[in-house]
Amino acid sequence: MLGSTHGTLTTTQRSARVLACGTRPAGGAGTVHSRADAADVDVSGRPLSAPVADLERFFRPESVAVIGASDAEGRPNTGITRQLLNWAERVGARLHPVHPKRATVFGLPCVPSVAELPEAVDVAVLLVGDPLPVIEQLGDAKARFAVVFASGFAETGRDGADAQRRLADAAARSGVRLLGPNTNLNAFERFRDDLDGPSIALITQSGHQGRPVFALQELGIRLSHWAPTGNEADLEAADFLSYFAGCPEVGAIATYVEGFKDGRSFLLAADRAARNGVPVVAVKVGRTGAGARVAASHTGKLTGADATVDGALRQVGVVRVDGLDELQDTAALLARARPPVAEGVAVYAISGGTGAHVADLAASAGLELPAFGPAEQAALHQWIPEDLDVSNPVDSGGHPVGDWRGRKIIDALLSDPQVGVLICPITGPFPPMSDRLAQDLVDAAEETDKLVCVIWGSPVGTEDAYRQTLLGSSRVATFRTAGNCVRAVRAYLDHHRFVRDYRSPFEAAPRTPSPSLRKAQSLLRPGQRLSEHAGKQLLRAYGIRVPREQLCTSAAGAVRAAAQVGYPVVMKASAPQLAHKSEYGLVRIGLTSASQVRDTYRELTEIARQEDIALDGVLVCQMVDPGVETVVGMSLDEVFGPTVTVGLGGVLVEVLQDTAVRVPPFGEDQARSMLAELRGSALFEGVRGRPPADVDALVEVVLRVQRMALELGGGSGEGLAELDINPLVVLPRGQGAVALDALAVCR
Amino acid sequence: MLGSTHGTLTTTQRSARVLACGTRPAGGAGTVHSRADAADVDVSGRPLSAPVADLERFFRPESVAVIGASDAEGRPNTGITRQLLNWAERVGARLHPVHPKRATVFGLPCVPSVAELPEAVDVAVLLVGDPLPVIEQLGDAKARFAVVFASGFAETGRDGADAQRRLADAAARSGVRLLGPNTNLNAFERFRDDLDGPSIALITQSGHQGRPVFALQELGIRLSHWAPTGNEADLEAADFLSYFAGCPEVGAIATYVEGFKDGRSFLLAADRAARNGVPVVAVKVGRTGAGARVAASHTGKLTGADATVDGALRQVGVVRVDGLDELQDTAALLARARPPVAEGVAVYAISGGTGAHVADLAASAGLELPAFGPAEQAALHQWIPEDLDVSNPVDSGGHPVGDWRGRKIIDALLSDPQVGVLICPITGPFPPMSDRLAQDLVDAAEETDKLVCVIWGSPVGTEDAYRQTLLGSSRVATFRTAGNCVRAVRAYLDHHRFVRDYRSPFEAAPRTPSPSLRKAQSLLRPGQRLSEHAGKQLLRAYGIRVPREQLCTSAAGAVRAAAQVGYPVVMKASAPQLAHKSEYGLVRIGLTSASQVRDTYRELTEIARQEDIALDGVLVCQMVDPGVETVVGMSLDEVFGPTVTVGLGGVLVEVLQDTAVRVPPFGEDQARSMLAELRGSALFEGVRGRPPADVDALVEVVLRVQRMALELGGGSGEGLAELDINPLVVLPRGQGAVALDALAVCR
Repeated sequence: MLGSTHGTLTTTQRSARVLACGTRPAGGAGTVHSRADAADVDVSGRPLSAPVADLERFFRPESVAVIGASDAEGRPNTGITRQLLNWAERVGARLHPVHPKRATVFGLPCVPSVAELPEAVDVAVLLVGDPLPVIEQLGDAKARFAVVFASGFAETGRDGADAQRRLADAAARSGVRLLGPNTNLNAFERFRDDLDGPSIALITQSGHQGRPVFALQELGIRLSHWAPTGNEADLEAADFLSYFAGCPEVGAIATYVEGFKDGRSFLLAADRAARNGVPVVAVKVGRTGAGARVAASHTGKLTGADATVDGALRQVGVVRVDGLDELQDTAALLARARPPVAEGVAVYAISGGTGAHVADLAASAGLELPAFGPAEQAALHQWIPEDLDVSNPVDSGGHPVGDWRGRKIIDALLSDPQVGVLICPITGPFPPMSDRLAQDLVDAAEETDKLVCVIWGSPVGTEDAYRQTLLGSSRVATFRTAGNCVRAVRAYLDHHRFVRDYRSPFEAAPRTPSPSLRKAQSLLRPGQRLSEHAGKQLLRAYGIRVPREQLCTSAAGAVRAAAQVGYPVVMKASAPQLAHKSEYGLVRIGLTSASQVRDTYRELTEIARQEDIALDGVLVCQMVDPGVETVVGMSLDEVFGPTVTVGLGGVLVEVLQDTAVRVPPFGEDQARSMLAELRGSALFEGVRGRPPADVDALVEVVLRVQRMALELGGGSGEGLAELDINPLVVLPRGQGAVALDALAVCR
Repeated sequence: MLGSTHGTLTTTQRSARVLACGTRPAGGAGTVHSRADAADVDVSGRPLSAPVADLERFFRPESVAVIGASDAEGRPNTGITRQLLNWAERVGARLHPVHPKRATVFGLPCVPSVAELPEAVDVAVLLVGDPLPVIEQLGDAKARFAVVFASGFAETGRDGADAQRRLADAAARSGVRLLGPNTNLNAFERFRDDLDGPSIALITQSGHQGRPVFALQELGIRLSHWAPTGNEADLEAADFLSYFAGCPEVGAIATYVEGFKDGRSFLLAADRAARNGVPVVAVKVGRTGAGARVAASHTGKLTGADATVDGALRQVGVVRVDGLDELQDTAALLARARPPVAEGVAVYAISGGTGAHVADLAASAGLELPAFGPAEQAALHQWIPEDLDVSNPVDSGGHPVGDWRGRKIIDALLSDPQVGVLICPITGPFPPMSDRLAQDLVDAAEETDKLVCVIWGSPVGTEDAYRQTLLGSSRVATFRTAGNCVRAVRAYLDHHRFVRDYRSPFEAAPRTPSPSLRKAQSLLRPGQRLSEHAGKQLLRAYGIRVPREQLCTSAAGAVRAAAQVGYPVVMKASAPQLAHKSEYGLVRIGLTSASQVRDTYRELTEIARQEDIALDGVLVCQMVDPGVETVVGMSLDEVFGPTVTVGLGGVLVEVLQDTAVRVPPFGEDQARSMLAELRGSALFEGVRGRPPADVDALVEVVLRVQRMALELGGGSGEGLAELDINPLVVLPRGQGAVALDALAVCR
């Protein structure tokens, strides 16, 4: 009875807390979705919103059970029990040890089984080898969360994956939310409570990989949560991401991801973070095949094609970094820095060489260093010798930082309206200068809204100016390398620009089929590859322009078709399974007369006969003017489902694999970003005297292919497995884009 | 008399020392060149060897003068004098203060002027505002080296550059070698003498930028020399590079370069280092225009086009890095690690996630992680639980590292014949495991020739296992980030491969003109741009294939030419100043009959008339089969002189600027490396069913263009300012390469 009363009370409390977490005071459209929203799906049948798990009681439980608790010397569970006991005490939770044979554990009364627990616990930690029966008992005992440490599940192969599925099913049946298996104690660490300001919340699929971020607390950076999600049989990284995105104290979410349990739920969670303006910084393993393979075997998750992962993270504004050091530095900066008041960067050093070097690295990272005008330079030369360059980077020459002039220089730089970020590399400690410089920077940072970054370049790192002065300030962002500093500043500026302009694509995603779908469905041939002609009809159904063309089965028919299509024409052999037409000589361009058409018809059919290719006819097509050759396509990713790719066409760029990928739904802004990402994007502007290309038309095609991906690529039933428009010729501005060939493979 | 006797003695001593420095015991062809070798020049008139300055007496002087010495409280020179006094004491040199008015300085007898110095000093340090007159006096006093601290020279603009030139002239006249101006005390720092093993020698053009490398001594890494070269009026970075490359204790040279005083002397010095097997690691500012501009204004040196710098450094094996942290980590590794016994990398971690992540980063950096076979895996599974992946990366799961099994695992990995490098990331300190792991790694490293690398991932860095155990070992390479570790290991493997295969291109460089030169000279038109036809004749003179072609000045002539050239033909308008022929419609391809040729002649001349272009005729050219379009060219770099560029042709790659650059002289190996560097190099292998291209023929053209660059691009007198073969069509293997167009600009 006590348990249930208590349960009722805390349900109310929980709602209140979730509300606090669900709506951030600092703006954003974050709302708490309930599971009832699951009916809200797009035309592909995928959810447009995700429930936000109520994890407040996981991180701040009122009661905790430890199943398999021990205080016997030398047992591994003893150390774990002790850590849980300490943690429960810190968060103010009652702890209930469960063990079949003990009366007490560490002096606390112990019950023999879950059934005998004195209350419905918020969190049950399972230290037992076989968690499955316990999960079922926890359901009966109305426990909220179960944490399963045991390993030997999906990470070990097929049998383990089956066992994991049974565990997940049991959790779903019993109403217990499950963390793990193959997780650990990281959620129950001791977090420093003496640190102020916005915090980092951490999500890791491998606990060990979160250790350096956790250790940031020793450098003065606040950490509020750590979710070690392990194998994600039930709760996954996305659940924690959604939850943290609504926690008012969280300034940034840092995550180490090996694979996604479900691409859509990750995107929905990251969308929530983007809408709430909460930056997410991620290491995602799988840059190389080796990494992907190992990561998959580690937690039994799929990693996704890396280009798709890259595009997906980009479209929801997740900052992808490679190293754990970058994860730390970038998350710390994004968590704590206020939004930029200007985008210009000033580099200020006590040596011209240092300034030149850091300016070079900053410019390489895409940062903008506004040149200072004569008035600004004159102001700086009040304190800096005349012969030193102060046009940005600013070289003080050293001496001025040792006295009252040092602060003047910093204040002058911070008061420049173009400057939003000051980067001050302190390459080597020289206490008479660097101690005062560090203190001046800390003091100045207290009095400005602008971002002050210091690069402490000494590899030693035990110096007082670093440990005490700089790390003691929550207003100065201190880095150990210039590379990490400039990349983090770039991520900071990009993030704020991104969230300022962000419109959730899930709000605008189509919920009902377009009129095109019915036309398209009649063209599908389940399990087959469509002929070029049928593929183009599919494109036409979705409003994508194709050349005028006719499929002909006689020379006379071809001549008639050519007259209707209009000379000059292109002729191509057509057959459903025909690839590499050009290599067989089955494409002829620039035919200008009836006799050429007639001869060509005969030649093409003769080649096909010799090569034993069963044609369904010969296409007579309008000849399209030259333009920029591109490729637009759709394919299915094992993690993210249908994806849309755009790239530059032609043989050269096929070699360079210059493509960009996005996961539907996405907006026009992302379609434009895809084009900007292409290394050869300058081609669209017109090179060697060519006119600029009709980029708007290309964007429109990308969005129409997205529509096809949503209507035909997702869900079950008939549809497309693959679509490849190659080439799509983008004509000069105002003239559109035309699909010259299409390869469509049906599911 | 004492002075001169002393001088005689030390000349002998010096020779002995230089000999020690000049010939490394550990192999290599390093020899000491004397100034007499200066007559040894290549066909362009550039030196093929450089004198190695005898800097032994600079770094280990027997007598030192301080001009402007002071011991007066509060004077800036007082601190400097004190530091020089300490330094002189440490290196065992006699110190002679010079000051017009003082009798003693810090208790040492002071002379009023250089003329009164009691001996010919090895090093004179000038703390005076106007060093020029002192340099002349030092010449009379037979001083060897002068160090000039004063600033206000080339770094301040034209007047300063003039003053610097006068200083350099004075030094040259007086026979004093000069360091500076605008240098500092870095050469006279206190180096730790308690550290063993190969050292880093440091060269910086900005003293402050060397501070972090200097501080490596606090992490146990030996530094033996620091040359702060400042404005390089006389002694330049290349002089120190040559000298350090011959010092037996130097394991690697680390350098921070803003600009090169002379590209050739830098290349010759780096060539010496490569021949001696001494790795050189460089930060070179100027990745971006901003960096280049600032760097130039900082020390008044030219920075060179960055792509040229990149190619030049690569061809002599200099490892270019971006950040000072990478400079430290890479130089420390290259200095201390023995040559690899195998190229395979094993990644070993106490967590599967960590292993997956580091394996991913390692593979991204181009490292090879051999998969372990069943036998190796079975061996590892003696100590590692069966369900953990040990196929490389190796996941110990943690527990085994805490006991005797830990060392067994490490030894097993190091005994694998495929493994040359073991990388062990210790992501977070957990003393029961990480302390023992660190110690086991240190112990194992003592007993192996293989490279053992540790990534200490904690951002804190005050842990004992890091500070005491790992940094205490000179056999373990300890990094703070995975990125720096894998990149440094890559540089280490690349370096040893490079020096193993290195053949100095200066030995094989042509000293006398080829027979082609005389033919070429008759075609040059000083200050003018050659017509396409003349440009192609120039190529033909150097044995580069061009299409059969004739320059015609009448329609009838064109028809005759076409018959001789052979149908189909290409026709192009020809004029010396004619660029963008295609855009004017002045190129016609695929002409198959006399009537087409006659008509085309009239059309081309008519267009030229309308566009007011004075033709020297119309080219009737053989039509060449399709192939891979490339660009090969020569241009003049302000720092490195003539350079050779190769790139992929066509409009797309023009947009991507996919080119590689080298500085003559270079060998065939480098010509092949250039092709491998191209992002689109896969095109040469044949894509979409095309045959592989005749890469050997392309390499031959690159080498012939190099010959042109050497004979026509360098030196004074008539020659080429620029040559651009675009396109050079590389035909299928065995069929050669043909220059379809050529643009040549004469000096």
